[in-house]
Amino acid sequence: MISDLVKANRSCRRFYEDHPLDLKTLEALVDLARLSASGGNLQPLKYILACEARMNAEIFSCLAWAGYLKDWPGPEQGQRPAGYIVILGDKNISQDFGCDHGIVGQSMLLGAREKGLAGCMLGSINRKALRKILNIESHLKILLVLAIGKPKEEVVIETVGADGNIRYWRDAEAVHHVPKRPLQEIIVASHAS
Amino acid sequence: MISDLVKANRSCRRFYEDHPLDLKTLEALVDLARLSASGGNLQPLKYILACEARMNAEIFSCLAWAGYLKDWPGPEQGQRPAGYIVILGDKNISQDFGCDHGIVGQSMLLGAREKGLAGCMLGSINRKALRKILNIESHLKILLVLAIGKPKEEVVIETVGADGNIRYWRDAEAVHHVPKRPLQEIIVASHAS
Repeated sequence: MISDLVKANRSCRRFYEDHPLDLKTLEALVDLARLSASGGNLQPLKYILACEARMNAEIFSCLAWAGYLKDWPGPEQGQRPAGYIVILGDKNISQDFGCDHGIVGQSMLLGAREKGLAGCMLGSINRKALRKILNIESHLKILLVLAIGKPKEEVVIETVGADGNIRYWRDAEAVHHVPKRPLQEIIVASHAS
Repeated sequence: MISDLVKANRSCRRFYEDHPLDLKTLEALVDLARLSASGGNLQPLKYILACEARMNAEIFSCLAWAGYLKDWPGPEQGQRPAGYIVILGDKNISQDFGCDHGIVGQSMLLGAREKGLAGCMLGSINRKALRKILNIESHLKILLVLAIGKPKEEVVIETVGADGNIRYWRDAEAVHHVPKRPLQEIIVASHAS
């Protein structure tokens, strides 16, 4: 059921770093992206894949993790992603990528979850450094980085409280809590017969 | 398998308009959106639901369909969507919705597909008219309209040819063909051990 998968598909930031991830797996995820909808069917997105220790470390150095967890600089060695999919927008095809990267990001993370993997869409990126490391040509805009690996964290969904605070937090057992707004708050009107 | 669902989840523009769609079904789809990832977990998206003939007709009048099919003004009466989910961005929460609407759009359309429904994310909207019809407050930005119903069209994926033409087209049997770029064209680099 897609609802189980969507529920299970929590943004994950701690992984079994030594759990192997191969190119074939990453390519299968990009194939899900390839077959997803694209505004005007332009398909302006391009991808760089990485699942190799040295390159992973370089990509990791360009990423900022979990902005609300002020005392947590990101996953420690041994708990870092086993691989990455960098999502790029090809400006030779379009200047406007709409929300295509969200569509494909969700396709790929749902696909990863089904394979027992998990991931996180990261938008807080040192783009200048990443461009240099990966030799990304100037016509390719860095949109998102998907971090992927075997999950080593428990994530719990809860309901946003009366104070409206949506910041995720970690408890004493390092369980990651994510407050989500209730349905009645996000549906502003319904028209039915 | 998510790959079967992603493959089956083609943008659909012709429906069995009289196939009933109820509010409960639309709410279940929004619940998938609610549980999907959101940049900084801000969850700035809001939703308006419609599955009622008169309101459906009014929403339909604000939408432009299938830009590449110059001779097709959109689905005729009897083949129009049985319902809509309007995706809004609440500017009181954030000024920047990133690609959140793509993430939730994909969650909802995959959920619809699993239920035997299909849909289309429409971005070509007469926003001024829609705002008036639905009484949308000024702090809510109209991002996308999801059209939903029981599919009444066959869609075929094919590979983009040497000419690079990505325009979808319809054959003499009214089958809708969608050219997708091949994997080797969209993966620009791979780093594996």
